Amino acid sequence: MVKPGGPFKTPPSSPLPDLVPSAAAADPVQTEIPVPRASRRSEIPAFEVMRITDEIARRRLAGHDVVSLCAGEPSARPAPGTLKPAGYTGPLGTMPLREAIAGHYRDWYGVELEPQTVAVTTGSSGAFQLVFLTAFDPGDRVALASPGYPAYRNILRALGVDVVEIPTGSATRYQPTPELLDAAVAERGPLAGLIIASPANPTGTMLGRGELSALVEWCRANGTRLISDEIYHGITFPEAGDPDPRGVSARELDPEAIIINSFSKYWGMTGWRLGWAILPQSLVAPLEALASNFALSPPAPAQELALTAFTAESYAERDAVVAGFARARALILAAEPELGWGEAAPSDGAFYYYSELGPQLDRFGDSVAYARALLERADVALVPGVDFDPVAGGRSVRLSYAAGEAAVEEALARIIRFQRG
Amino acid sequence: MVKPGGPFKTPPSSPLPDLVPSAAAADPVQTEIPVPRASRRSEIPAFEVMRITDEIARRRLAGHDVVSLCAGEPSARPAPGTLKPAGYTGPLGTMPLREAIAGHYRDWYGVELEPQTVAVTTGSSGAFQLVFLTAFDPGDRVALASPGYPAYRNILRALGVDVVEIPTGSATRYQPTPELLDAAVAERGPLAGLIIASPANPTGTMLGRGELSALVEWCRANGTRLISDEIYHGITFPEAGDPDPRGVSARELDPEAIIINSFSKYWGMTGWRLGWAILPQSLVAPLEALASNFALSPPAPAQELALTAFTAESYAERDAVVAGFARARALILAAEPELGWGEAAPSDGAFYYYSELGPQLDRFGDSVAYARALLERADVALVPGVDFDPVAGGRSVRLSYAAGEAAVEEALARIIRFQRG
Repeated sequence: MVKPGGPFKTPPSSPLPDLVPSAAAADPVQTEIPVPRASRRSEIPAFEVMRITDEIARRRLAGHDVVSLCAGEPSARPAPGTLKPAGYTGPLGTMPLREAIAGHYRDWYGVELEPQTVAVTTGSSGAFQLVFLTAFDPGDRVALASPGYPAYRNILRALGVDVVEIPTGSATRYQPTPELLDAAVAERGPLAGLIIASPANPTGTMLGRGELSALVEWCRANGTRLISDEIYHGITFPEAGDPDPRGVSARELDPEAIIINSFSKYWGMTGWRLGWAILPQSLVAPLEALASNFALSPPAPAQELALTAFTAESYAERDAVVAGFARARALILAAEPELGWGEAAPSDGAFYYYSELGPQLDRFGDSVAYARALLERADVALVPGVDFDPVAGGRSVRLSYAAGEAAVEEALARIIRFQRG
Repeated sequence: MVKPGGPFKTPPSSPLPDLVPSAAAADPVQTEIPVPRASRRSEIPAFEVMRITDEIARRRLAGHDVVSLCAGEPSARPAPGTLKPAGYTGPLGTMPLREAIAGHYRDWYGVELEPQTVAVTTGSSGAFQLVFLTAFDPGDRVALASPGYPAYRNILRALGVDVVEIPTGSATRYQPTPELLDAAVAERGPLAGLIIASPANPTGTMLGRGELSALVEWCRANGTRLISDEIYHGITFPEAGDPDPRGVSARELDPEAIIINSFSKYWGMTGWRLGWAILPQSLVAPLEALASNFALSPPAPAQELALTAFTAESYAERDAVVAGFARARALILAAEPELGWGEAAPSDGAFYYYSELGPQLDRFGDSVAYARALLERADVALVPGVDFDPVAGGRSVRLSYAAGEAAVEEALARIIRFQRG
């Protein structure tokens, strides 16, 4: 007899398990808006070896002397040269790191998480692809703000999801609103998902608790899965007395929201490729099955090092870095009159300043030509807005002040000379 | 004027570029089998910031003092605690590592590669997902051998690809053949792709130069994209005088084949998550566009450390590890009479031994029940074949002898006692 929940699965009777319709579809008498479910395409088997590995660990903890001939992993793995050995971890990361991340949510947001709902991923990039695969099927409609991070749109498109761009501007601080979402539904049909980012890339604008609550409510009422990109949390420039100085996590407001975050921005670990997702309970197993096939495990050395991220010393060190970003940001805001550009998004957080070019457009035509000329003549590199907004981005540029005060000061001087010349 | 090939793209006139039909479809007079092209879904824009970063590097090399306000990456990135700073690399890895990998192909296979056709990825897992997205559209049929590595099948299914399982057995050494592929085409229709693995997981069997050439020819004649998983190359047990002691790379036979490899197995760097793909020229840009959105960059510290993998000392060290696998393998082969199982695949390479259970099936019913009882009563963990072969895997188990001689010796003694008890 095979016990349910054990590490060994019964061989299926057909070559591949059939994709079954969701329970919602099987229930004709549906009296309320259903909570969104896992995608059909996430119904692939987990890679069982990774689960047996867990069972081995449990037996060893219980005192058994287990000999394992399971893993396709050299036990003699002193990597070449100076490399430290580092083996696969579980597909969703090590339990100590998942617990440490849960602790971070307690500290910053007052939210209690089951560590098992924390999925450690290969950067937030790894989280996005796994979450999109878990939450959405081909043809599903998913909304996102434009301007926005281009990889959302591009990953979704490559996965066959129908991207619904919500054009935003200064009237809504470059963020979606229930009204804009209603308009999108009226034009395109019901939305399976909504991706939000606060602070946002490229604009830096944030959603306050009220605005975020309104979006959460709208998603609940419309059966729309909310995915909240919070990778810039902590890189924020709050006024004194702000009750949410690090940013508001959608997880505070809705346990069904999917949260995505990363060690890359606040902790500056970009090249280590480590991020995480906070999942509703119903999506943990489907996402783990996908992760065990698509990634096996997130990078192990990065996970070990990330354990040191959540100490008082580490927060203090990172807050000092953020204070440097604040000084660089102040330089840009002070230079606004001399730059003489058009409307800029309020740079609430992240390290981005996104602005229309105003009179410079008359001279250069669009932001692509402006950025090219600026690089060629003044050796200052900016990003033209077309990457973030295929429609209106030709009017805007993004400045990242992550480069710090000195670089920003030099760049501003060169830009002002360039525009005069 | 925007120069062609420069880092800045002109804003498209429509919000998202239309997917265009392939040139083959536009050419009604088609006189020969076309070389397979990139998928339609790979026609997403690259993340332009990553390209501008390249342009900045070129200008700096040319002596320019460039100030960059481009990257969304903290320049002050001393990561927490003891972390070394490590920033994003290019989406396909650092050029020194891509050059070093090209050098490895010169040394082992006598093949000259353009380093720019080497894509460094987040493990071979990262290579599989990017290659499958680049090469195949939803509904394409892709063949693979059964038994085989389950993640091929599961990733392809999650990406909407139609998986064609080729049942194999001892008659073809558990590898596909032109005859088996013809039969699959007759039953299911033309194949967009074929995935092969040599040495294979779970069987360890290898394709000789003749067998591999026949598959290459079949793919050419049928317009089928060949993807060759070579992650176990070097973990081989050749007889003296074998002209291909490391394994034959499909790249030796066909520049259109896609090769996938990894630092995880021969170099034992599993947890570092670093692998690579060798691409035909026509797939480099599409895969780079996908990588720049799906992954941003492979892990940077792993790339730095992997540069030490291709020295004489490193090869010698790894070959000593392989010699240990050979000794562990010999123990299993010597124990075959006492185990009394059924037919086993020839364990040519990797560190796997895959065998039918023979008379043990009469006692336990299937390999799932056998493996469960073995773990519970004798504390030996094996993998039942159902993970690798949903049809016939209930009759077989996989032993990994990567655990080494001592573990294998103890496990064999326990298995034999268990079967007697």
